[in-house]
Amino acid sequence: MTDKSPALQTALAYHEAWRTKDLDRAMSYIAADIVCDAPAGRIEGADAYRAFLAPFVQMLRDARMIAAFGDDQTALVMYDATTAPVPSAPGAECVTVKDGKITYSRFLFDRAPFQAARQ
Amino acid sequence: MTDKSPALQTALAYHEAWRTKDLDRAMSYIAADIVCDAPAGRIEGADAYRAFLAPFVQMLRDARMIAAFGDDQTALVMYDATTAPVPSAPGAECVTVKDGKITYSRFLFDRAPFQAARQ
Repeated sequence: MTDKSPALQTALAYHEAWRTKDLDRAMSYIAADIVCDAPAGRIEGADAYRAFLAPFVQMLRDARMIAAFGDDQTALVMYDATTAPVPSAPGAECVTVKDGKITYSRFLFDRAPFQAARQ
Repeated sequence: MTDKSPALQTALAYHEAWRTKDLDRAMSYIAADIVCDAPAGRIEGADAYRAFLAPFVQMLRDARMIAAFGDDQTALVMYDATTAPVPSAPGAECVTVKDGKITYSRFLFDRAPFQAARQ
């Protein structure tokens, strides 16, 4: 299900870093000028991305990769995450990787159970 | 970004069928005993899957593949869809394919904008 494409190597290393709640290591794979199109809108720059990722890592209990593929520049992953408010919170990310850093991410998850948990 | 893995061929043919609003053709790639884990819960069997897919196809305006990968048995795709209620409704599907039919699908999209549009 996985190969060793350059983009996928970076995506998997990034995934493993946040899965183990190592935010600094996760951010080491994020380009300074990252653009991320997430469900709530566009996130630009590593500082904004960190502010987006940090609360997720804080509520994370575990994650399990469902599938991961890639080629030279692009990786596509889907995983299931267990979080404090939402027991099953799957996500999918399609990332563009340049020189070992994620420069673009299309990020997808279902916001509905998080919104429900907040109410 | 795509290869010609057997599973991916089926996933892409299925995608093209629903993208062009050909529900019967889309269903021809769905196994009778499909299991689909979707945001709202598990869908079992082709009849239930059709009942899930039909209203989506009805509100669909267009879809654009973002990335698509696969191997012998598994395909993973991410796309953006334009629908009547939600202008950008990306989705991701990780499907298991046997004998040219999708037997399992992990289906991911953000329900939040659809819920907001209904209110």
